[in-house]
Amino acid sequence: MIKIAVDAMGGDFAPKEQVQGAMMAIKLIQDIEITLYGDELAIKPHLTNSERIRIVQSEGTIDMGEKDPIRAIRSNRKSSMAMALSSVRNKENDAVVSSGATQALIAGAHILVGRMKAMKRTAIAPVIPSISGKPVILLDAGGNIEIKPEFMLHQAYFATIYAKEILGIESPKVGLINIGTEDGKGRQLDQDAFALFKENTSIDFFGNVEPKAVLDPPCDILISDGFTANIVMKTLEGTAKGVGVMLKQELKRGFFGKLGLLLSMKNLKRFKKRLSPEEIGGAMIYGLNGVVIKAQGSSKSVGFYNGIRQAANVVRQDVINKVNHVIEKEGE
Amino acid sequence: MIKIAVDAMGGDFAPKEQVQGAMMAIKLIQDIEITLYGDELAIKPHLTNSERIRIVQSEGTIDMGEKDPIRAIRSNRKSSMAMALSSVRNKENDAVVSSGATQALIAGAHILVGRMKAMKRTAIAPVIPSISGKPVILLDAGGNIEIKPEFMLHQAYFATIYAKEILGIESPKVGLINIGTEDGKGRQLDQDAFALFKENTSIDFFGNVEPKAVLDPPCDILISDGFTANIVMKTLEGTAKGVGVMLKQELKRGFFGKLGLLLSMKNLKRFKKRLSPEEIGGAMIYGLNGVVIKAQGSSKSVGFYNGIRQAANVVRQDVINKVNHVIEKEGE
Repeated sequence: MIKIAVDAMGGDFAPKEQVQGAMMAIKLIQDIEITLYGDELAIKPHLTNSERIRIVQSEGTIDMGEKDPIRAIRSNRKSSMAMALSSVRNKENDAVVSSGATQALIAGAHILVGRMKAMKRTAIAPVIPSISGKPVILLDAGGNIEIKPEFMLHQAYFATIYAKEILGIESPKVGLINIGTEDGKGRQLDQDAFALFKENTSIDFFGNVEPKAVLDPPCDILISDGFTANIVMKTLEGTAKGVGVMLKQELKRGFFGKLGLLLSMKNLKRFKKRLSPEEIGGAMIYGLNGVVIKAQGSSKSVGFYNGIRQAANVVRQDVINKVNHVIEKEGE
Repeated sequence: MIKIAVDAMGGDFAPKEQVQGAMMAIKLIQDIEITLYGDELAIKPHLTNSERIRIVQSEGTIDMGEKDPIRAIRSNRKSSMAMALSSVRNKENDAVVSSGATQALIAGAHILVGRMKAMKRTAIAPVIPSISGKPVILLDAGGNIEIKPEFMLHQAYFATIYAKEILGIESPKVGLINIGTEDGKGRQLDQDAFALFKENTSIDFFGNVEPKAVLDPPCDILISDGFTANIVMKTLEGTAKGVGVMLKQELKRGFFGKLGLLLSMKNLKRFKKRLSPEEIGGAMIYGLNGVVIKAQGSSKSVGFYNGIRQAANVVRQDVINKVNHVIEKEGE
C-alpha cells in the first residue's frame, strides 16, 4: 500500500475540496491509503467513506499570505501542513499532497521532510500547458533565487527521470530558458549552465529556448534559476488570464457578437479548461527525502485528486531513488 | 522642421511598408522632413510625393538574423541603418526610425549616435498592451544583461519623463518587476534597486510588481535588468500568440462552434488588433545622444507611421534634454 498524507486544511476551498478529492482517489486508485491531517469536525461532513482513509487531528493553520514562511512552519508544528510533512520523515507516510501556501510548503518540506542525500538544493517544478497538449516541466519555479549550474544539472536529472517515469516521455529533451537561442547567450550563469549541460550524457540537452516558445517549446523540460523561471511562470499566468479578460470584453460587443459568443460558449469553456491548472496537476518539489506535491491553492476536488494520483505514481515508480542513483553515478 | 531619418531597408516588408508609412507621416504631420536611407531603385516605385521627403542611396543591409551585430554595423557603414544613425550624430537629422534587427540597432546606435552625457547605459523600452488600454513601458527589454541599480534609476527617470511628455500620463508610477510584491523580495539586485528607488523623489515609486499583473499593472512603468525584462516580454509575446492558436483550435469545433466563430469574426479581429504591436508603436532606445525608435520588424505602413510620429513627438518635447537635466540635478 502507498501511504499518502493529505493536508486537508490548505487551499482556498479547504477542507471540502481536499476531502472530496481524497475520496475520489480512494475510489479510483486501489493501492493507496490516505491520512487526512486537519480539523476533524470540519472534515467529517465531507467524508463519505472510512475505508483506507482516516483523520488525524491538527491544530492551527499556515496562512496563505504568510510573510515569514519559515517562522510560520517552525511555530506551528501541529498545523495540518507541518504534521503531514513530519509524517513522511517518520516513515508513517510515503508522500504529502497540499494546496497550502507554496513558500511555507517549500520551507516546511526542507525542515520537516529533509533533503535527499545527493541533491544540494530543492526546486519546485510545475507542469505547464502547451499548444500541442504535451506536458512541459518548468523549473525552478520558486525555490532558489540564486543557484549554481551544477544544482541546475541535478534538477535536470530529476526532471528527466520524472518526465520518463511519470509523464511517459521516452527521451525527454532539456532546454535552458534564455533571451536568445544561440550558444553563449545570456548571463554568466546561463553560459556556464549551457557548457555544463552540453557535455553531460545523462540528459538529452536541446540548447537555449526563448520564452517566445513557452507554449510550444522544442523540448519537454524548461530550466532556469528560481527567479527567472518564476518570472516566466507568472508572466505566463498573467498573460493567459489578461488575454482571457480582453477576449471576453471584445466578444460581447454588438448583436452578432453576443449571438456568436452564445454559440461559442461550449468551445470557450473547453479552451479555458485547457489553460486551467486543475487539468495539469500539481507541482512536485524536487530534492527532498520524500514525495511532496503542491496542488494549486485554488484546487477543486478533481485538481486535488490529480495531485494525489501524481504523488502515488511518483512513489510507485521509485523516482527519488532513481534520481539518487544517477547523481551518485555522475558524481563518480 | 523636425528631421527624421528613416531606415527604409530594415524589416520584413521593407522597403514598401517603410516608404508608405513615411508618406503617411509626411501627409499627417506638418512639421517634419524625412530622409529615406536605402536603395533608390527599390524605394522609388512606392514614393508618391517628393515634398519634404528625399532619398539617400545606401549600400548593403544588416541581416535580421545577424549573429554578431557589432561587427555587422562596423563593417557596413554604408548600410541604410548605419547611414541613418550616423546622420543623427552629424546633426543632419534629429531622429532615426528603423525596423531593422534590434541588437544591431542597439549596437549601432551606441557606436554611431553615441551615449548621452548623463546616462551610462542604453536601454530599450517597448510599450506593451494592457487590459485597461493604458500604455505601459517595459524596460530594459534587451540592452543590458547585467546592470547596476543606479543605471536602472536613470532608466526610471527617462521612462517617467517619456510617460509624461509622450504618453500624457500626469504622474507615472514606477514598479520593479519581482517574484513577490513584498519589500525585500528577489535577488540582491532587486533588493538594492528597491532601496534606491524608494528613497528617490524624482520618481513616483510604486514598489514591487509580480508579472502575474503584466497586462494589468498597478503602475505605468515596469523595470528590471535587461535579462529579466526581456524574458517577461518574450513570455508575454509567446503566451499571447500561443493562447490565440489554442483559442482558434477550440472555437472551430462543432457546427454551432463554427457558426459562433463566424458571427464573432469581427470581434475576434478587434481582439487581435488590441494585442498587435502595430497599434502600440515602436520601442525607444534610452540613453543616446539622439532619438532612435525601433519599429517592429513585422511593421506594416501604419505601424511604421506610428514610429515616425513617436520619434517626432520625442524631438518636439525635448525629452533627452529634460532627462539630462534631471540626472544632473539628482547627481548633485
